[in-house]
Amino acid sequence: MSVGTAKDNTFVSTLVKDSYGKSLVRLTKINRNGKVPTWKEITVESELSGPEFGSCYYEGDNSKIVATDSQKNTVYVLGARNDLNSIEEYGLALAKHYLDDYKHIDEVNIRISEDIWTPIPIEGGVHPTSFVKAQSDIRCTHIQMTRKETKVTSGIDNLIVAKITNSEFAGHIKDAYTTLKDTHDRILGTKIEARWIWKNTAVDFNACYETARKIMLETFAHHHSLAAQQTLFAMGDAVLAKVNDIEEISLTLPNLHRVPFNLEPLGMENKNEVFVTTSEPFGVIKGTIGRKK
Amino acid sequence: MSVGTAKDNTFVSTLVKDSYGKSLVRLTKINRNGKVPTWKEITVESELSGPEFGSCYYEGDNSKIVATDSQKNTVYVLGARNDLNSIEEYGLALAKHYLDDYKHIDEVNIRISEDIWTPIPIEGGVHPTSFVKAQSDIRCTHIQMTRKETKVTSGIDNLIVAKITNSEFAGHIKDAYTTLKDTHDRILGTKIEARWIWKNTAVDFNACYETARKIMLETFAHHHSLAAQQTLFAMGDAVLAKVNDIEEISLTLPNLHRVPFNLEPLGMENKNEVFVTTSEPFGVIKGTIGRKK
Amino acid sequence: MSVGTAKDNTFVSTLVKDSYGKSLVRLTKINRNGKVPTWKEITVESELSGPEFGSCYYEGDNSKIVATDSQKNTVYVLGARNDLNSIEEYGLALAKHYLDDYKHIDEVNIRISEDIWTPIPIEGGVHPTSFVKAQSDIRCTHIQMTRKETKVTSGIDNLIVAKITNSEFAGHIKDAYTTLKDTHDRILGTKIEARWIWKNTAVDFNACYETARKIMLETFAHHHSLAAQQTLFAMGDAVLAKVNDIEEISLTLPNLHRVPFNLEPLGMENKNEVFVTTSEPFGVIKGTIGRKK
Amino acid sequence: MSVGTAKDNTFVSTLVKDSYGKSLVRLTKINRNGKVPTWKEITVESELSGPEFGSCYYEGDNSKIVATDSQKNTVYVLGARNDLNSIEEYGLALAKHYLDDYKHIDEVNIRISEDIWTPIPIEGGVHPTSFVKAQSDIRCTHIQMTRKETKVTSGIDNLIVAKITNSEFAGHIKDAYTTLKDTHDRILGTKIEARWIWKNTAVDFNACYETARKIMLETFAHHHSLAAQQTLFAMGDAVLAKVNDIEEISLTLPNLHRVPFNLEPLGMENKNEVFVTTSEPFGVIKGTIGRKK
Repeated sequence: MSVGTAKDNTFVSTLVKDSYGKSLVRLTKINRNGKVPTWKEITVESELSGPEFGSCYYEGDNSKIVATDSQKNTVYVLGARNDLNSIEEYGLALAKHYLDDYKHIDEVNIRISEDIWTPIPIEGGVHPTSFVKAQSDIRCTHIQMTRKETKVTSGIDNLIVAKITNSEFAGHIKDAYTTLKDTHDRILGTKIEARWIWKNTAVDFNACYETARKIMLETFAHHHSLAAQQTLFAMGDAVLAKVNDIEEISLTLPNLHRVPFNLEPLGMENKNEVFVTTSEPFGVIKGTIGRKK
Repeated sequence: MSVGTAKDNTFVSTLVKDSYGKSLVRLTKINRNGKVPTWKEITVESELSGPEFGSCYYEGDNSKIVATDSQKNTVYVLGARNDLNSIEEYGLALAKHYLDDYKHIDEVNIRISEDIWTPIPIEGGVHPTSFVKAQSDIRCTHIQMTRKETKVTSGIDNLIVAKITNSEFAGHIKDAYTTLKDTHDRILGTKIEARWIWKNTAVDFNACYETARKIMLETFAHHHSLAAQQTLFAMGDAVLAKVNDIEEISLTLPNLHRVPFNLEPLGMENKNEVFVTTSEPFGVIKGTIGRKK
Repeated sequence: MSVGTAKDNTFVSTLVKDSYGKSLVRLTKINRNGKVPTWKEITVESELSGPEFGSCYYEGDNSKIVATDSQKNTVYVLGARNDLNSIEEYGLALAKHYLDDYKHIDEVNIRISEDIWTPIPIEGGVHPTSFVKAQSDIRCTHIQMTRKETKVTSGIDNLIVAKITNSEFAGHIKDAYTTLKDTHDRILGTKIEARWIWKNTAVDFNACYETARKIMLETFAHHHSLAAQQTLFAMGDAVLAKVNDIEEISLTLPNLHRVPFNLEPLGMENKNEVFVTTSEPFGVIKGTIGRKK
Repeated sequence: MSVGTAKDNTFVSTLVKDSYGKSLVRLTKINRNGKVPTWKEITVESELSGPEFGSCYYEGDNSKIVATDSQKNTVYVLGARNDLNSIEEYGLALAKHYLDDYKHIDEVNIRISEDIWTPIPIEGGVHPTSFVKAQSDIRCTHIQMTRKETKVTSGIDNLIVAKITNSEFAGHIKDAYTTLKDTHDRILGTKIEARWIWKNTAVDFNACYETARKIMLETFAHHHSLAAQQTLFAMGDAVLAKVNDIEEISLTLPNLHRVPFNLEPLGMENKNEVFVTTSEPFGVIKGTIGRKK
């Protein structure tokens, strides 16, 4: 495949794929339409592609270029027009805007992440106009839109959890490269990264996100884990069982090892109480889970 | 001042100050003594100093050196022996250990930060042995101990807040370097960094920490702010008013600006709804607040 | 597609894709075979997949699992056996090991990054056994190996450059979302991220890497840029023209904007000398460049 | 001490210390005065204090406040006026500006860090107007100025080095907390952080910085190290011996351990060739070295 043709014959090569856009566009939106104002903070990336951009790569012809500075403006203009009820609805509006307004754009990718803020707790309730970013996990979405198809993938990053019972790891291959022994009582700690594909775009994105997050936490808490892989599948299966609007879910679970500190050379016994928290190296367990056909 | 004397006369200089230690020692501790186990994750730094270390700097004589590897071991050994009820109590035990066991050590500095974990919420309550690090702010302490004096400083980092009403900034100096106009309705956003000095070491550190955190949040929420400086003082004053065991508090409040996006060139009006979230540059407001004498 | 079948019929879903491995395995290797020793520091990730891992996800059956801890061991064992002449040769050996030793593994992905160290300059030359990590860019490779096919992709990250002449941006679309004006004299600053696919695995990886890095820098320096896209294509084309062993190259060039600071409201003129260095938002220009068929 | 007095008697506390300023102000400066243009990128922080700011903390009175936004402007205005020959000269001008223009400011602190850029190497020399940030270490300065005194401290961060011969660690205290054995052949790796105090402000800052950096590297390379402490002192002493304009130097050397990987359980011998590169925990060695009186 190639994208357009260069007028300049001195090139030995041809453009196979192109895209360009704007990253880390950060929008704070206060919505004052309701009884109490809402506060949202999102970070947006837009990325455009199409064969007509080829002349920019070959000859520096910018006549088809929506400047990345204009893409930044567009985030704020649509941020003003849109309710921003959910990052998915806003992202869909943003993607649609590019395909509607510029016929030479073939594909738009919008990636949004959202910091989760909550009202500050005060005596007898919460404060209506003061907020705390108390939550360390992040909500995100990716809209991939062409004139034929729209794919919305949403998820969660940095949801950090650990369980201290009901976690084993035993029976793995023991060969010349193995030093790890079986254990029937280990800490399982991870930082959940989830990405799910929605069945369609007419979904209560906010409610489904809340349910998916809650189910993943509960399943992680309750599961008797023989392997991080098994817990991963259980979490994905539970989400698909409870949230009909999700078609498929991918999970990445780093295995953030807590290694029992060896107190023996120091004349003490470690009663499974004292661990070295490690950040590297770490295991990475991945799986994509789909509905049975 | 100088620390010892070099035998080697070829040196042009002398050691004025010394210290050495171990950083980023990460300890996970499960305490199984209570009805339900507790889970703590802390990061420890120990730093030792004393004039007798001079011969190590001058001649490479390690005979007085408690190896940093041994300091690492000590974190885990005392982690096993200590309840770790609070980072302050554990840190005090750690500092005392060095002064008790090594007569040539003059001063010990222990710095500890703690990630805040909470039980995972499940149907009808919380799970007893599964945890989520859901909170983005961090608790910390610094123990500075000599044979004459012990100073305990504790605090909070990364407590991210914003308020969208009751925040003004007006009346500042207008001169040849000024472009900022008065505003009576701006977003005030910050990332609270607090450090307080305890009156003594016989304190309910956990309860006081909870109270200080709560009061800072509430005061930030309620305060009518004419300047970030004023809000800072109000927060510090409120902590001193409610927590008798705190002698003095220092606050650092970066001013994480949300700049109204200028929609005018794009033919729209910004009704104080759409802002550029910025991370640099940022204002930094600092203040130390003490009790009236 | 699905990976194996769960014995447990209560699942609503099926495993579509699996993989697991070890990340951030950091190896320092001193090779003492030559006249002077060499020093290398690399970070390795290995990732394994195959349908037989399904039973681990479904039932927690670890009998086919090469523990991620064993994968860590393997990095060091092969690090001892292999000369580590280049990260590509070492990575190929690592990938081959897994397919040779474990018949149920279908695909291996090895990702390696290398910090570039150089001997410390001293009077009259360089020191033979002391090194400085003076270079901020990073060399990397990705080996994707199945029993049918081996694909080696290598590249460079974090190569930060800027040019202050011969850079324009003009003629872009001007519409309701545009505020950016044409400019014929702008700073073009970027952080080069390059990934190239090798024609085969019998290549002088080190020499080709050096040539590719040099050509990209020179082309960036010399190019008269009408758009970052055009400079990107010129850089890729130059690499393909000079390095026969590279089949295709993908470049990602963030546009790290330096915005002229507006001195006018402060009564001065900015003679294109004073700029705000920005880190967000930034443009992202991407392109994949292949040989003409 | 207290800073001013609050009119409001309801406060329980008083302001002990105040300061405020602007951080992460990033300036790119092109100086076109010479034969070839120069390119500098610096990051500036200004911090102001004085007792008259007290009314801002107590009552939100901004009448004495130089807005942090104006401080940002000032960085660029003085960036335009000043040659920026060195960060020290520019920083001194910036500090002096505040004390000259605002009588109620008592103390100014300016902190600047500089990324080191060099011309891109091309066939037969270097390109005059294209630059690469090829160096990972950073140059920095801190100006502390009152009407009575000016103190200039400069230094280097992130200068990463390692040596594989002439490094021992033996003879340290062996007690109940010790597991580390003596070694006479270890890797010594560190990330040099240096801060030196200048004798006065009439110094060739650029030449002295180059000399100090060179001497530290050479001393690290040549030194036979019995302890990181000893190497630290040797480096500081060498700088003081060669650079007369430096009065005192403080060095912080993290000990970035490379731990020999234990190949024995895997049936191999580690001939001091294969190491685990670790990032945590790490030793921290500090020392301040002054001239003999």
